[in-house]
Formats: sequence, C-alpha cells, structure tokens
Amino acid sequence: MKGKRADVAIVGGGLIGCALARELAGRGASVTLIEKAHPGAEASSAAAGLLAPQAEGLDAGPFFDLALESRDLYPHWVEQLFEETQMDVGYRRAGILRCAFPGGEPALEVYDWQWEAGLPVERRDAGGIAALTAGAVSGAVREALFFPEDALVDNRRLTEAVRIAAERRGVTFLAPMAARRFAVAGGRCGGVETEEGLVKAGHVVNAAGAWASFDPRFPVPVEPVRGQIVEVESRGLQLAAVVESEEVYVVPRGDSLLLGSTTERVGFIKGVTVGAVRRLLAAAARLLPPLEEAGFRRAWSGLRPGTHGWPLLGPSSLPGLSLATGHFRNGILLAPVTALALADELSGRSTRDFSPFSALRFAECPAPAPIPEMTC
Amino acid sequence: MKGKRADVAIVGGGLIGCALARELAGRGASVTLIEKAHPGAEASSAAAGLLAPQAEGLDAGPFFDLALESRDLYPHWVEQLFEETQMDVGYRRAGILRCAFPGGEPALEVYDWQWEAGLPVERRDAGGIAALTAGAVSGAVREALFFPEDALVDNRRLTEAVRIAAERRGVTFLAPMAARRFAVAGGRCGGVETEEGLVKAGHVVNAAGAWASFDPRFPVPVEPVRGQIVEVESRGLQLAAVVESEEVYVVPRGDSLLLGSTTERVGFIKGVTVGAVRRLLAAAARLLPPLEEAGFRRAWSGLRPGTHGWPLLGPSSLPGLSLATGHFRNGILLAPVTALALADELSGRSTRDFSPFSALRFAECPAPAPIPEMTC
Repeated sequence: MKGKRADVAIVGGGLIGCALARELAGRGASVTLIEKAHPGAEASSAAAGLLAPQAEGLDAGPFFDLALESRDLYPHWVEQLFEETQMDVGYRRAGILRCAFPGGEPALEVYDWQWEAGLPVERRDAGGIAALTAGAVSGAVREALFFPEDALVDNRRLTEAVRIAAERRGVTFLAPMAARRFAVAGGRCGGVETEEGLVKAGHVVNAAGAWASFDPRFPVPVEPVRGQIVEVESRGLQLAAVVESEEVYVVPRGDSLLLGSTTERVGFIKGVTVGAVRRLLAAAARLLPPLEEAGFRRAWSGLRPGTHGWPLLGPSSLPGLSLATGHFRNGILLAPVTALALADELSGRSTRDFSPFSALRFAECPAPAPIPEMTC
Repeated sequence: MKGKRADVAIVGGGLIGCALARELAGRGASVTLIEKAHPGAEASSAAAGLLAPQAEGLDAGPFFDLALESRDLYPHWVEQLFEETQMDVGYRRAGILRCAFPGGEPALEVYDWQWEAGLPVERRDAGGIAALTAGAVSGAVREALFFPEDALVDNRRLTEAVRIAAERRGVTFLAPMAARRFAVAGGRCGGVETEEGLVKAGHVVNAAGAWASFDPRFPVPVEPVRGQIVEVESRGLQLAAVVESEEVYVVPRGDSLLLGSTTERVGFIKGVTVGAVRRLLAAAARLLPPLEEAGFRRAWSGLRPGTHGWPLLGPSSLPGLSLATGHFRNGILLAPVTALALADELSGRSTRDFSPFSALRFAECPAPAPIPEMTC
C-alpha cells in the first residue's frame, strides 16, 4: 500500500460512502474507499428501504427540507444507476398509508402543516383504506393518512448498484480493511491509517455509520441504535402501498413483506430477540389480520448510526476531515443528497448551509485533544 | 436392484423405521429400508424430543402403559446406542414442570390417578417452581405439577445414532428412494416396488409416518398434523427441567430452548406461519418473562403422523404387511418399544396384544380392494 494516494479517502462502505465515492469519481476525483467488512454489510442492507420524509412525521425545518430534496432526487438517481449498471433497484413511488387505531395518534398535526405547505397528503376513511389494501387492513382502523409521494427502494440492490457504479468510475475499494485512525499532520487530516498501511488523501470523509468513532481521538456523537426486521411471505396479501401503524410498518418487497422495526440503544450488539419478533408480528397481524396465515421467513437486525438529532454532514473540527454519518433512520433516503452535498463541499463550490448538520453544533462533543503529529 | 431380497423390507427411514431395522438386524434378519428422502428428514428431526407419558396427560390404559414402557426402555437403549456409535444423544431425565396459570387447568385429575397408581408426580407451589427454574417462571403461576421421570432426548442426534447403528448391523438403506406400492402376490405382501425396481421381502413393514398411505390400494388412517417449533437462545435462562403451560412447552437443548408446538391439520404443507410464531413466542414469554430478551434463532415445522386415536402397530389386513406408524406426538417416545414389539411380532414370538393398536380397529378403514396379483 506504500505510496497510495487519493484525492479523497472515504471510511465506510455503506450506501452513504459508496454514493459519495461514485459522485466524486464522476467529477474526476481519485477516490479510495476503506470498508471494514464488505460494502453494504451493515445498516445499508438491514434497512427496509423506506423513502418517507412525509410519513416519518418530521417537523418542518432544514432536516425535513433536506429529506424532501433527497426523496425528489431519487427518480433521476435511480435512472442514472440503471444506465450505469442495468440494475433495477426496486424503486417505487408506492405511497405510504399511515393507519390510526381508535385512541391512537390521528397525526392530524402532520396533515395540517403538510397540507398547508402544499405537500401531497390525503385523509382516507375506511373505504379509502380498503381500496388501497384490498381490504386487508383491520376493520378497527377507521382513518389513515396517505402520503402518495413517499416511496420505497430495495436498499440491498441499491447499495450493490451504487458500489458497482462507483467501481466502474474507478473508485478503489479496500475491503475488508480496518481503518485504524486518521493520519494527522500540521493540524490537518491527510489520510487514513489502515491495518495494512497508510492511505494518503487530500481530503478524508468519515462515513463509518455507527462505527464513526473508530478513532477515539476524534469521537463523533453517534451511537448504534438497533433495528430489528422480520420478513414474511406476501402470498395472498399484495399491498399496493406501504402500510403502517404507530407500532409497525409493513413494506412490500418482491414476494415478501418486511415488518419493522425496533429502536434499541443496546450498543454494538446485533441480534434478534424474542420480544421484538413477538411485538412486530403481533402489531403487524393486528394491523393486517390476514398476515396471521402468512409464512414466516426470517428476521435480522442492523445498527443505525443514531445522533441526538440530525445527521452530521460537512466539515468537522479537524481540517481535511468531513463527516457524512448519523443518518439514523434515514440513511437510505438521504444518500443522494448527502453525496451531492459532500461532493460540492469537497470541491469548494458548495453554497449549502451545513450549520444545522455540523458536528460543531454539539456542545457536548469533545473538542479535539492535542493532536499527535505524524508524517503522512 | 434385480434380485434384491431381504427378510424384512421397511418403508420409511424415520426414527421408527431405523429403530426397527436396527433391532431386526441385531436378531439376525437381513433388512432393507426404503426412505424417500434421507433418514430422519421429516418428523423425527422436527420434534422437540419430549419423552413425556406422564406430562402428556394421557388417560390410564393400554396406550399409557405402552408409552411408560417405552420411556423406561430409554436409558438402556441409549446406553446400547452409545456403545455402538459413541454418540451422546442428549438423553436426560430432566423432568417436566407443568405450570398452571390462575383459571387454567390444575391438571389435578392427572395428579390424582397417577399418584394413586404409584407414579412419581409432585405438586409444586410458587417456591417449588422457582427452585426448579431459577425464578424464571412468571409470578402469576402459583402451582404446577412436576413429573420427575419424564425425560428428553435430542431427537436429531438420536435418529442419526440409530441410523448409524443399523448400518453397522448390516441394514441396507435405499435413500433417497421412493416406494411406489406394495408388491402383492397370492394375497400376500411380498415386497415393495420402488422407483428403481422391486425389493422382495419375506415381510414388509410400513413405517412411513404421515406418508403411510403412499400406496392408495392400502390406505392407512393416518393424516399429517403439522407442528411448528421456534428455537431461541437459552443464554441467561438455564432451565433444569422442561417447563410447560397449557399453551407451550419450553425444552432446553444445548444452548437453545425449543418452543413448541402447534397442532394443525393442513395437509402435506410444511411451513412456518406468522400466527404460530407469534403465539408460541407470546405464550413462552408469558410463562418465562426473561425470554423476552432471548435471541431468536429460527423456526421450522414437521408433519406428525396423526391418527384419530392411538398408533397403528402390528399386523395389517394384508398378510405379510405390518404397520408401525401413526405415533402422532409420541413417535420419539415410542421408538424403542415399537422396535421391540414389531421385531417380536415378525419373529412370531410375540405374546403382546396388538389389538388396541391394530389398524383393523378402524371401522372406517376401507377393506382391501380386490388385490391385483403380481409376481414378486
């Protein structure tokens, strides 16, 4: 690896890292991506692939705007990926039907502000719900909100397509390869030390997701938040849209339905638990009673990169090091806008205001300790 | 296969067929076993391995006596198998703790008659329950029956050990090999027609489990009864005994717990359903609340050979053909006694009364139609 040098080194081969690598390579940069396992091995493949800024119930503001921008980038992005890889990544503007049980949240606040903001959102009564779901939703559900522009994608195929597209544009993938720490000299990040030597780079991006604090000298306020998903057979229950309640979402994918998810702060422990599977199955069968007879396929978990707020995008406190992590529940959704925004920033032609997403906004984020100098 | 001839041909390579083959070969018979897939592929590997004549709640009578006899044969049988194969088949006289929730069955009738019959059975209060289960059983359970002589075995390893022991005694295994029909000549069964030709035999035993009616000319009143089982991690929940309620049993096996089971008459459809997994997990977590945090491993199903009563053992209406099927929930338990009883019968030195288990007891069982003659 001696002498390896890239314009940009990216740590983390999830969808975010791969998408940024592809974007940068398309703009003529030489890019090296360092991934501890294999691209897409973690949260990017564990997700359910919802592209749901509206149904997510976000407040109006910069994060919602970013999420909406990214959702609207998807159709063109997916087209480009198809041209580059001939892969169908299962993007569908299927819409999301958010159902309310009596006594549950009617989500009317969400409806009001989105409607006033001119966003497509519809109120559905029992008849309108039945029409979208072939009558599969429980009769106990009397009302729902429908977000017709929210979409879904097969995040596994998507990550694979983006990786292939990045490789075709000349990105160097070092995987499996552990990044040990950032190489720092003259108060500036100049590369990444890996288990097999130094990767020098003009700029480094930390896209390591839940593992973003791999270099303890530069901790990132991101922690793993486990999500569990159960996959069941969709036979006999063809849903035109994503259907969800307060307790569960049900996502059609191929001949399966994905039932998600949990939000557990249990450290770096992947695993599927009795309690989570039980609750997801019970909630899904309560929402869609015909699911009781559906075939059970399997269950898995992933570790989302959670922050106590919005993602961490853009410059860090260490010159030469940018962040693209902390996307929590919205990493798949935010991939295209993250790739564009970070590529703009690295090329110095960004007019975007990163301040809402800056790591510097966290008062509790430790200031960089005295930086051990090293030659790189 | 031309010219193949055995003293006994057995159709079905489950635990029953393998155990009988081993027993007969040990008595000097030449035995050919015909199995459609591989030995133990079906119910024998899907079971949870309970050896529980007492906890099963059977009435006093010939079937209970047979089951008890078989349970008591186990220790010696397992010793012999160890000598022959060096395999530990996980036999343990762990006891079974049958817990009653308030309002549920106290099973006192079972207690009364078993106690009066001199069988070991104990009433346990909350303290006695906690002592056996390290306090893991729900506080809502105030009483239980404990059957200290009921036992468990790893039915997969057991079936494998019995198969190996049978092979070492010279049994010929034809597997995978489909049995097409019985070969009949002179009003007597003289072998089995397989997809690759005729296996001639002095005597034939149908041990084909749920598939016992493979020859439509000689239907057996057995139907598949599906059972589903969920396997979870036992970490942090070391049970000394099998623990069960009216809804579920929880069987320790290695570092797993097996949660079972359902009783579904859905034909020859294996499969794991949302409803069954949901109910088994909910019932198990209700009985043993610490299970909520246990890791989920997998789920499977098997098809038990169900009758509308007891198993079908001994002579059939067709001379030369005996039955050893219909063991329903008790096939693992009844394997050793079935092997002994059928071997005795085939050698003509049985003094056992097979009438309670005879296929001839079913009035609705079609009498053999005129038998097409063939040379065998």
